[in-house]
Amino acid sequence: MSRFFTKTLSALQPYTPGEQPQNMQYIKLNTNESPFPPAPGVLDAISAEEVSKLYLYSDPDCKALTEAIAKRYGLRPEQVTVGNGSDEVLWFTLRAFCDEQTPLAYSDITYGCYKTWCSMLNVPSKILPLKDDYSVDTALYRGLNATVMVTNPNAPTGICLPLADIEDVLRANPDNVVIVDEAYVDFGGESAVSLIERYENLLVVQTCSKSRSLAGARLGFAMGNPELIADINRIKFSFNPYNVNRLTCLAGIAAMEDEDYFRACTGAVAATRDRVAAELKEMGFALTDSRANFLFAESSRIPGGELYRKLKEKGILVRHFDKPRLENRLRITVGSDRQMDALLAALRELGA
Amino acid sequence: MSRFFTKTLSALQPYTPGEQPQNMQYIKLNTNESPFPPAPGVLDAISAEEVSKLYLYSDPDCKALTEAIAKRYGLRPEQVTVGNGSDEVLWFTLRAFCDEQTPLAYSDITYGCYKTWCSMLNVPSKILPLKDDYSVDTALYRGLNATVMVTNPNAPTGICLPLADIEDVLRANPDNVVIVDEAYVDFGGESAVSLIERYENLLVVQTCSKSRSLAGARLGFAMGNPELIADINRIKFSFNPYNVNRLTCLAGIAAMEDEDYFRACTGAVAATRDRVAAELKEMGFALTDSRANFLFAESSRIPGGELYRKLKEKGILVRHFDKPRLENRLRITVGSDRQMDALLAALRELGA
Repeated sequence: MSRFFTKTLSALQPYTPGEQPQNMQYIKLNTNESPFPPAPGVLDAISAEEVSKLYLYSDPDCKALTEAIAKRYGLRPEQVTVGNGSDEVLWFTLRAFCDEQTPLAYSDITYGCYKTWCSMLNVPSKILPLKDDYSVDTALYRGLNATVMVTNPNAPTGICLPLADIEDVLRANPDNVVIVDEAYVDFGGESAVSLIERYENLLVVQTCSKSRSLAGARLGFAMGNPELIADINRIKFSFNPYNVNRLTCLAGIAAMEDEDYFRACTGAVAATRDRVAAELKEMGFALTDSRANFLFAESSRIPGGELYRKLKEKGILVRHFDKPRLENRLRITVGSDRQMDALLAALRELGA
Repeated sequence: MSRFFTKTLSALQPYTPGEQPQNMQYIKLNTNESPFPPAPGVLDAISAEEVSKLYLYSDPDCKALTEAIAKRYGLRPEQVTVGNGSDEVLWFTLRAFCDEQTPLAYSDITYGCYKTWCSMLNVPSKILPLKDDYSVDTALYRGLNATVMVTNPNAPTGICLPLADIEDVLRANPDNVVIVDEAYVDFGGESAVSLIERYENLLVVQTCSKSRSLAGARLGFAMGNPELIADINRIKFSFNPYNVNRLTCLAGIAAMEDEDYFRACTGAVAATRDRVAAELKEMGFALTDSRANFLFAESSRIPGGELYRKLKEKGILVRHFDKPRLENRLRITVGSDRQMDALLAALRELGA
């Protein structure tokens, strides 16, 4: 920290993203990317003609893109807004709906950015511990007097909450916004989008980084009642009005329009996940019931940190969190069948 | 505003970007875009192969891009960081170097986002009035006890500060960061990059939106001593680690590497600007000595708001700010020669 850095943020701990080696030398199973390229329409959409138009600003309202997302989810455009990845969208929601008097409530084991954002925004965290088996204790979610973050499926556990439980949370916190972070919902979870018309306090946040193979394009979106969406846009236009670039808008539209490809990719990932989970169980691994595009696995023989390092030596990157209740687990992205077979072979060689 | 929106930001006034009609029906001279397409290398860089890699995250460190920028400006990579447009980079600097006790000092007439960002971040504004002729009163810039924003050239006036004055500001505020926003410097201004090695409190912020024809790709960058850059990165990694997408990284590298194209485009814009300025003066317009890619012009015959509307009726969009000291002026982007000839013809027809 330089002597000029604001003292108000001296305790800020930035988020550490998963390793992103740029030379493709690893089998990358550490940042929950899709193993499939974007939909064929994305390649068509990013044409030379469109690249040559980059001298013009993007549409700050991202009208065509929000319309495409709204159409896909059976919503009206004013129920949708977009951002530079769901990270930015989630940050906007925290900035809009939390403050020093309105904490953010979230699980003790979940996406690490929530804590960092609260620290940056001077928003208190209300931590709701998961049970010993990593499942959510819904009894904790009543009358929180806080903005509520429900990560569904949760990360890095992959465990889902049924829609009935989400409804309970919405009803138990009628005077606070409930954000459902559905980054991983498309691989077998139940989306809360269907509840938007009935709950004015519901915001659903999704991303194109996982199920739509666009991690490198950065596109996330929020869906909810038009008033909440207008609130988020108020933050967006006070921060960076042109937050989504031209080519990402085009990629997002093309990805939304190819439902068959989306279903094929997410279905293949889910099938691979379930096959690998069964094999790992047979090998003696402990697993949660992940409905996401990753597995949350514990070897009965090799500690998590050691197994992470040994896999890396073998050219396979997975994610290890050196934190209480997580240190013996690995979060393993579900890649292609070939990648997962290489993982299984490596684990067997290591005696895991 | 919904009933859920934080009361702490109830006074927030979002920035209003210039009109961005999406149907290309206007001659667009209102948002200071380049009239030229991106460098030919940009089209090559955004290949089908690269688009098909969008399923992978971008490099959070943007290593190749920061290296290309550093090389272009004779710096080391650790003296550079990048963001989703210079709007994001500037916001990061405000978040890093301002707080309730450390105001931001800036001109009364300048880029409108500074005020919005201060309001969002609860940072006091220390307003430094321009002189009657819109020039900077450098006597006001001594011992400010504030983070200082110098917009050079200023917008919407286009007026430059010489480097000697920038050095005076740096020396007069040794315990505060001085941010030089050089969004428009490449059309005839003098960059403060050459001062970076000598002043630890200097940050230079530039953008690829104007002089590098990449407004729609969203890419801005900050240059300064490695400690300040690390401070900015601390904010970036606490907000949105993957803030610059894959294709924008590639576009930025290609743009940085084509110096000839950069010089040809910026030279052509400057020549057109000076030609049109001379013609407008002959027609009786009052003009500042703009070194940017826009003119700041006042008709002696037609009030600013009326002239803006009449030009729009004729299919030409310029920017009008309905604010004190600006209401009779138009900010006119310097487009292609053909676009500017159409503008001049329209102004003559209107009797302006």
